[in-house]
Amino acid sequence: MSDRSPTPRPGPCPIDGERLWGMLMEMAAVGATPKGGSRRLTLTDEDGAGRELFRSWAESAGCTAVTDAIGNLFVRRPGRIQGLPPVVMGSHLDTQPTGGRFDGVLGVLAGLEVLNSLNGRGIRTDHPVEVAVWMNEEGARFSPPMMGSGVWAGVFGEAEILDKIAQDGARLGDELERLGWRGTAPADHRANSMAAYFELHIEQGPVLEHEGMEIGVVTGAQGQRWYEVTVTGREAHAGPTPMRLRKDALVGAAEIVGLVRRIGLESGDEACATVGILDVQPHSRNVIPGRAFLTVDLRHPDDGILAGLDARFREEAATVCEGLGLGVEVREFWRFPSTPFAPELVGRVRDAASRLGYRWRDIVSGAGHDAVYVADVCPAAMIFVPCEDGISHNEAENISPEDAERGCAVLFEAVAATAINAAVAGRPSR
Amino acid sequence: MSDRSPTPRPGPCPIDGERLWGMLMEMAAVGATPKGGSRRLTLTDEDGAGRELFRSWAESAGCTAVTDAIGNLFVRRPGRIQGLPPVVMGSHLDTQPTGGRFDGVLGVLAGLEVLNSLNGRGIRTDHPVEVAVWMNEEGARFSPPMMGSGVWAGVFGEAEILDKIAQDGARLGDELERLGWRGTAPADHRANSMAAYFELHIEQGPVLEHEGMEIGVVTGAQGQRWYEVTVTGREAHAGPTPMRLRKDALVGAAEIVGLVRRIGLESGDEACATVGILDVQPHSRNVIPGRAFLTVDLRHPDDGILAGLDARFREEAATVCEGLGLGVEVREFWRFPSTPFAPELVGRVRDAASRLGYRWRDIVSGAGHDAVYVADVCPAAMIFVPCEDGISHNEAENISPEDAERGCAVLFEAVAATAINAAVAGRPSR
Repeated sequence: MSDRSPTPRPGPCPIDGERLWGMLMEMAAVGATPKGGSRRLTLTDEDGAGRELFRSWAESAGCTAVTDAIGNLFVRRPGRIQGLPPVVMGSHLDTQPTGGRFDGVLGVLAGLEVLNSLNGRGIRTDHPVEVAVWMNEEGARFSPPMMGSGVWAGVFGEAEILDKIAQDGARLGDELERLGWRGTAPADHRANSMAAYFELHIEQGPVLEHEGMEIGVVTGAQGQRWYEVTVTGREAHAGPTPMRLRKDALVGAAEIVGLVRRIGLESGDEACATVGILDVQPHSRNVIPGRAFLTVDLRHPDDGILAGLDARFREEAATVCEGLGLGVEVREFWRFPSTPFAPELVGRVRDAASRLGYRWRDIVSGAGHDAVYVADVCPAAMIFVPCEDGISHNEAENISPEDAERGCAVLFEAVAATAINAAVAGRPSR
Repeated sequence: MSDRSPTPRPGPCPIDGERLWGMLMEMAAVGATPKGGSRRLTLTDEDGAGRELFRSWAESAGCTAVTDAIGNLFVRRPGRIQGLPPVVMGSHLDTQPTGGRFDGVLGVLAGLEVLNSLNGRGIRTDHPVEVAVWMNEEGARFSPPMMGSGVWAGVFGEAEILDKIAQDGARLGDELERLGWRGTAPADHRANSMAAYFELHIEQGPVLEHEGMEIGVVTGAQGQRWYEVTVTGREAHAGPTPMRLRKDALVGAAEIVGLVRRIGLESGDEACATVGILDVQPHSRNVIPGRAFLTVDLRHPDDGILAGLDARFREEAATVCEGLGLGVEVREFWRFPSTPFAPELVGRVRDAASRLGYRWRDIVSGAGHDAVYVADVCPAAMIFVPCEDGISHNEAENISPEDAERGCAVLFEAVAATAINAAVAGRPSR
């Protein structure tokens, strides 16, 4: 199968784009920020208000709501055949501190719009169809990210996550109790399984917009390796210390920033390499930095190539620092293998986009998503829509009503193709 | 005159090195830190205790103490001729937050040791001889540095400085009152003038030690230009944003760190160029930095060459950022012209070092010192002694008892040559 759309031909839109946009705007008003974004940090009152609003809409649509022990919320439209696991759509409603209106929210509310459209058209499905709101995808208040889906998929232990402490001192388990979200359903994919999982999300990058594409058919997620790097030199006064006698840790750190970029640029279009944090000590205008700390984030969809980037990074960082008379310690902080999505479900997304006449291309997700943890234990796939200038994690994050409608329409088609006839869902992905 | 010492020949030591070292160690115990340094932040109780200890020693030596309106403390040994301005030695007793035992303290206590030695030898001087303890040289609790000498020299207004607020919220004038240091003498070089000023200080750099020199004859202070630089790119998610579509502000900032270093290395042995602070926003492991802030400190003893470094820095920073599609703003934050010290006094320091048989070299001060402000309004000179590994502003800062003794002996000889016979002091320096 091609990884690009053939000549587009128009198809009927199965969902109500205006109704979806109205919900998106109403949700954005919960925790609205001055510059047009949203702030609903995990397990704050604003996050609670957002979930309550969603639950009230879902209950108006005739759904039943269940919360599991880690605070994941599932709303269900029943299926025809007793005992079948649900076909699930979902994403998250929590945001970054100065987050946008669509990251996560689109996938949840488009899921609800799919349920509304199934209701409106009187469509019966063999499988129940659910919308999942995963707890703490962003990881901004409580780290790490993707906690709710991670516990559900068995990546994290429930007790370990309940004990996480926020930067503001709050304990996660206490906040769950306070908001009434510590539910009774097991936060466990074995007890609470899914036939299939689809997540619609904004791309959070510029590729689709740059190429004039309307839909990204997400074939999998990049492998990631995150590092913490400490460069050690010798702190000294900036005035009386001649250049040739210096051991400036920031000079070494700056060289590492440059080599990380070169590694990214020279390793093909799919490689990403980023330094997101750089701190210097003692952080004084007239003191030569004795220590620098930086984080490095390497990504590639091919784990073998990623291992090569890892080796090159470690070797060149050591060489650069040795040449400058500096010490360097490179510590792997986190790693995430590349995750291919379920080919059957990916194929249904591709078919839906073609049927609806949208311009689509295959794409690899560079960001982490709940779907990536879900994909470890059940068939999963994702749909991307373009976002303006590729900007995300930012109050200026933006999509058009048409983007939202197209993404939701593809979601509808893919879910319908999976849920209506029990025979097609639930095959293992790998 | 040569700027290096001829073959050393020994001379008698005019001061008591053991007595001096004892005072240094006793003072270091005031605000002692776990790693062997001192913490006497300006106008804290520890700073007060250090000054009280010094004053009690000075009064035991028969001196009278006077505090001026900005908290500078002067202790005086009278001269023979009524109405002559004093020959002054001095430095500061306040420290960095985790400061060393000698930065500033050596100049003050060596001054007191000179008074003790004059007493012990029964030497009468035409001029009064004083030791000055300048208020807030470090600028660590209240910014800017060199406040007390700056007000005295007319660089800062008294009212402006009294209103400075510390990071801990305290107002400088209130702290002066609290400690009883808001004296009645005018903080003004015109009302409270000096015939000459000598400041002994640790080098705070590695040059003397590196070359096996015992005394630095300081001929002046480097010109300085301090900048604040802001690099602006586009904040974006580190995963889904291809390398070639990025506008990474940290990549630009890192290039600037490299070019600042190249400018320093390529502009002769006396040029210094440092980035001491680098901050990135939003400071997240998986977000491409949209903004970076850095400080740049350029120094050279020749103001004309320094102006050339300024022009090169601005031009190359603009070129580098333009090539990366980034915005850059370079703002001069502070500047300080190069300051030549009074040739007569510098000559007396050189003569004293030679007479005593020490290995000396001429050196330019890369750091700011009270003497630099004092030199604006009266003849001034400085003496450096080496410090271990050039380390300063650090608890590990260290000198040997012999270093302290040699510096104090040179100070004694230079002061005696200036103060004993009124005919030699007080000529204008430039």
